[in-house]
Amino acid sequence: MIRVNDNYLKLPGSYLFADIAARARAFRQTLAVDDVISLGIGDVTQPLCDAAVAAMHDAVDELSRVESFHGYGPEQGYDFLRKAIAEGDYASRGVKISPDEIFVSDGAKSDTGNIVDILGAGRVAVTDPVYPVYVDSNAMAGRAGDYTGTRWSGITYLPCKEENGFVPQLPSEKVDVVYLCFPNNPMGTVMTRGELAVWVAWAVEKNVLILYDSAYEAFITNPAVPHSIYEIEGAKRVAIEFRSYSKTAGFTGVRCGYAVIPDELTVDAGGRTVRLNELWKRRQCTKFNGASYISQRGAAAIYTEEGRRQTKSTIEYYLSNAAYLKKALGEMGLKAFGGTDAPYLWVKTPDGMPSWDFFDILLRQAHLICTPGAGFGPSGEGFVRFTAFGRRESYVEAARRLKKLII
Amino acid sequence: MIRVNDNYLKLPGSYLFADIAARARAFRQTLAVDDVISLGIGDVTQPLCDAAVAAMHDAVDELSRVESFHGYGPEQGYDFLRKAIAEGDYASRGVKISPDEIFVSDGAKSDTGNIVDILGAGRVAVTDPVYPVYVDSNAMAGRAGDYTGTRWSGITYLPCKEENGFVPQLPSEKVDVVYLCFPNNPMGTVMTRGELAVWVAWAVEKNVLILYDSAYEAFITNPAVPHSIYEIEGAKRVAIEFRSYSKTAGFTGVRCGYAVIPDELTVDAGGRTVRLNELWKRRQCTKFNGASYISQRGAAAIYTEEGRRQTKSTIEYYLSNAAYLKKALGEMGLKAFGGTDAPYLWVKTPDGMPSWDFFDILLRQAHLICTPGAGFGPSGEGFVRFTAFGRRESYVEAARRLKKLII
Repeated sequence: MIRVNDNYLKLPGSYLFADIAARARAFRQTLAVDDVISLGIGDVTQPLCDAAVAAMHDAVDELSRVESFHGYGPEQGYDFLRKAIAEGDYASRGVKISPDEIFVSDGAKSDTGNIVDILGAGRVAVTDPVYPVYVDSNAMAGRAGDYTGTRWSGITYLPCKEENGFVPQLPSEKVDVVYLCFPNNPMGTVMTRGELAVWVAWAVEKNVLILYDSAYEAFITNPAVPHSIYEIEGAKRVAIEFRSYSKTAGFTGVRCGYAVIPDELTVDAGGRTVRLNELWKRRQCTKFNGASYISQRGAAAIYTEEGRRQTKSTIEYYLSNAAYLKKALGEMGLKAFGGTDAPYLWVKTPDGMPSWDFFDILLRQAHLICTPGAGFGPSGEGFVRFTAFGRRESYVEAARRLKKLII
Repeated sequence: MIRVNDNYLKLPGSYLFADIAARARAFRQTLAVDDVISLGIGDVTQPLCDAAVAAMHDAVDELSRVESFHGYGPEQGYDFLRKAIAEGDYASRGVKISPDEIFVSDGAKSDTGNIVDILGAGRVAVTDPVYPVYVDSNAMAGRAGDYTGTRWSGITYLPCKEENGFVPQLPSEKVDVVYLCFPNNPMGTVMTRGELAVWVAWAVEKNVLILYDSAYEAFITNPAVPHSIYEIEGAKRVAIEFRSYSKTAGFTGVRCGYAVIPDELTVDAGGRTVRLNELWKRRQCTKFNGASYISQRGAAAIYTEEGRRQTKSTIEYYLSNAAYLKKALGEMGLKAFGGTDAPYLWVKTPDGMPSWDFFDILLRQAHLICTPGAGFGPSGEGFVRFTAFGRRESYVEAARRLKKLII
């Protein structure tokens, strides 16, 4: 028998959100409570916009007739969507990205997870706290060393704390690749153009690959915050950008996203200059068969005038949830960060309480579920994450219960 | 900068179907010909069945309303589909597979490509000719050695030729994993229950993992041919099975398939017994976010009485295309194999002509595109593949042109 990939055996057993679900389930069953409000997992609740719905109905109809049937699409996505992206997400902001540099997929989790396929040995840096996929996918590829209970020995962690405004400092040790996610999950914080420019200049100088996760770009309201890393001069030489329709347009169940790998992004491989987008194209052509035609038609509809207006309105709804909850937390004397350019609030626990303890208090007293910050990494200790993706009535009720909390 | 995965640099530059498309394009443009019929690429042409269409419209409607909206689904697929599979594809044939052993995905290409993620070092065997994904995904993982022009030094090839009825012999050297695809792509041939039982018994004895690609199962008409490898005693201890709705129900553009990894399939990892489905679950939870809800609803509709009847009718249509073309080829004196339990015909070239030469003759004289067998591996030389997935009128016209062929 073939051996298994031993790196999988080093992974810690359980997954953060599975832990939370298990605790919530036990609580519900033990106390027969049925009014638990989950503001923990970052899943959307508002329906798809009418433009996407209409486009997807049309797509299903096309597939129902022989004369308009579509079989296999291009692995990299249909031209109609790649062109809409190049125009709608880049040219409209003064960034020149060609449709050939865009790879449509079934979502940013697949892309951020699979990107390690095309990479070789090297030191990886992540922010701390961090979205677990970046770390776990590197651990699976044997690029993380050993797990020591809270950290991986081979990963460089960049602490994001209140002291540094939750924005990472440049690594002091040599690294080869760094994951940046802005607007940030879980912290809800952003980098301004100036702050991001420092990272790009450093990456160009030190020859570092930036994997830039921009899944929450649609929530940016501050004009000083870039929507794409390619707004920064030089970024095309050092950065891959990941985008998703999950949070932009409620596509968490529809599955569509994309990665941008500019032509200028090359690596020297033993004297041979290799374009990373060639390797990714080869990877996708071999191990992926394109996103669903129906999902791609839905995604393209988001770029119409109607689609833009409708998705914007839903995003404003979520941002107003964030503002509502932030106000309520503030009135309790709790410090909440983020939530103005991102769908997440990063909330400091009272009196430095451990985040799982605060999770338990919120669950037991207020029947509210949040995400303990420690689950995202050691520097997340002392914080919990709330999402803004619920329905308004949940936040109204959550605020009412929070007011009665005894800490 | 991180290094690239050097294994990618060993891959031969071009992909079989890209080569074919380029030759066909050049031919069309040079001669201004617009009546080329492609019977090369294995893509379907018939529309989705009404049951799937109705279910997908309903799913889109559900996503359009707040009260029935679905966000993230389980990474392994919705219970409604996993249960339909367990009942419709397994229990109905007397095979006990639990929904927990089923992992719904966006298609069999993703699954057969990604499965190498959870495997460690070991010797891989494939049939020759073979679907390129099995080989390329192992080459990308560094498990194929070096490419020597036609073969990889680290892969064991099992020749399938006319002499052995296009069914591979058991490997004479020690291997750790073997890919089997039956009904076979590209050869259109099958294994009977008795033939497959020899492989399973051998795998149990030698501790070999069988990766069983059953994407064309729906085309089986011969009752002696198993639809699932789990119909064979002992297979649950040694085999992973891959299934797809692409050819069963025309889902090449919709994207849905699944893999089965039985609980009994375990590997000893340094004294620790590891269930492969645990590792795959971890892989999918980390790097995949579930297949589209709409696609899963469409797939579930295939298991209704109406869905079964409709998909069966389309499959009969394709099989009758195969029979029609096989008869026409026979009348020309060409020997065609397969096509009775599979949507592919494996056609011997006249007088041992190289397959790319015969491809050129068919293109130039008859404006027909086939797939040269040599593209699937050295033992494919001397054969070409025709698919049955076209429209009937294409086969009528193809037969007419074939009769005028001067070889």
